[in-house]
Amino acid sequence: MSGWVQVAGLGPGDDRLVTAEVQEAISQATDIVGYIPYVRRVEPRAGLTLHESDNRVELDRARHALEMASQGKRVVVVSSGDPGVFAMASALFEAVENGPKAWQDLDIRILPGITAMLAAAAQLGAPLGHDFCAINLSDNLKPWELIEKRLRLAGQAGFAMAFYNPRSKSRPHQFGRALEILREECGTNTLISFAKDVTKPTQNLLTVTLAEAVPEMADMRTVVIVGNADTRQIGRFVYTPRQVQ
Amino acid sequence: MSGWVQVAGLGPGDDRLVTAEVQEAISQATDIVGYIPYVRRVEPRAGLTLHESDNRVELDRARHALEMASQGKRVVVVSSGDPGVFAMASALFEAVENGPKAWQDLDIRILPGITAMLAAAAQLGAPLGHDFCAINLSDNLKPWELIEKRLRLAGQAGFAMAFYNPRSKSRPHQFGRALEILREECGTNTLISFAKDVTKPTQNLLTVTLAEAVPEMADMRTVVIVGNADTRQIGRFVYTPRQVQ
Repeated sequence: MSGWVQVAGLGPGDDRLVTAEVQEAISQATDIVGYIPYVRRVEPRAGLTLHESDNRVELDRARHALEMASQGKRVVVVSSGDPGVFAMASALFEAVENGPKAWQDLDIRILPGITAMLAAAAQLGAPLGHDFCAINLSDNLKPWELIEKRLRLAGQAGFAMAFYNPRSKSRPHQFGRALEILREECGTNTLISFAKDVTKPTQNLLTVTLAEAVPEMADMRTVVIVGNADTRQIGRFVYTPRQVQ
Repeated sequence: MSGWVQVAGLGPGDDRLVTAEVQEAISQATDIVGYIPYVRRVEPRAGLTLHESDNRVELDRARHALEMASQGKRVVVVSSGDPGVFAMASALFEAVENGPKAWQDLDIRILPGITAMLAAAAQLGAPLGHDFCAINLSDNLKPWELIEKRLRLAGQAGFAMAFYNPRSKSRPHQFGRALEILREECGTNTLISFAKDVTKPTQNLLTVTLAEAVPEMADMRTVVIVGNADTRQIGRFVYTPRQVQ
């Protein structure tokens, strides 16, 4: 029996945003690996073993998946959103790079999903309808100074921006600093949207100007989208025009 | 009967990447509007009118959809990839902004899809696994100088980059200029991937260094992904580590 690993994106929460490709992978799997709340989105069935793990153990989880695949198991690593955007795909390849050479020859596939910023953008209107960037605001894996530099350069470039992991209990103050930098680089009239629990029953959307934004509007379940100078509100929608004058 | 407009992302090509939400919208529609090849991906059925339009008439198409919805039709505007990323969602809100006030109260929804850069990233491995930006390299709707500026700032920020519309018959030389700028800002050893016809039977993937890249590697059916300084090849995969030292 030949094993495989597929890293699958479950989308932001609504099951109607899971692709058929991902559903098929799960239906063929022997083992599901992932962070607890994501594994719990998979329907249990006979012949399927669910392996729940805690947050922040991405490399252990990746190695576990690769070990099982090399033993002939069919393993789906579940990720929220898209696995390639601040999620499990990179962690899996890190484990491959630092693991036994044979892991490079395993049948490994990444199955894309609807990432949080694009689900949030769709709920808001089209705030990412022009050039944009995606920045993970957590400094767990990179220096905070680099994040500040990227915010400044993104502002100078006129990118709309999407922020993942904007704020957590362990680092409550950095997002306030990010807002200061954005006000300096983008001006205080630029629109900023806070999209919490996107596509879940608890979804909450809020759009204000950078002048009005306060750090408490974001937490770890929030995706933040900052517009460019042309981003505007039309009725209940936020959108960024395709055209720059 | 109350009409609506839903702007739906069909994903990059493989039907297994269409979400259930989009399939449901199409099944409830009376009218499908879109660029010819996207409309042809919708199965004809009784009671469903297919309106095919040419490329570069996005605003006309958006107005047509809004007019039909205000007459009570249930209209799906089909877009490839994700409608919010260099596609029809922004064009629709532009039409709303410049149209009759009543259009702002229409039932308008954007249904996200798998955008080309994330499908391409999944096929390659995880090249967008760290902070990244998405730039439309066409200067139809913005000055070329702004594109050059964004490329330079994105390089200085250390973003991985995804380029839509990198090169066309009507502007064959600009992509060569973009490669020059990237070599200056990112160095010649940075990896660049060309993903053509992603997830279609004709898919073709090519990864080289910026030193080796030539403009002819891209056309309008290609998504281009440029890594950051840490992006590497492990076996047949390209990935960008989550961590920056």
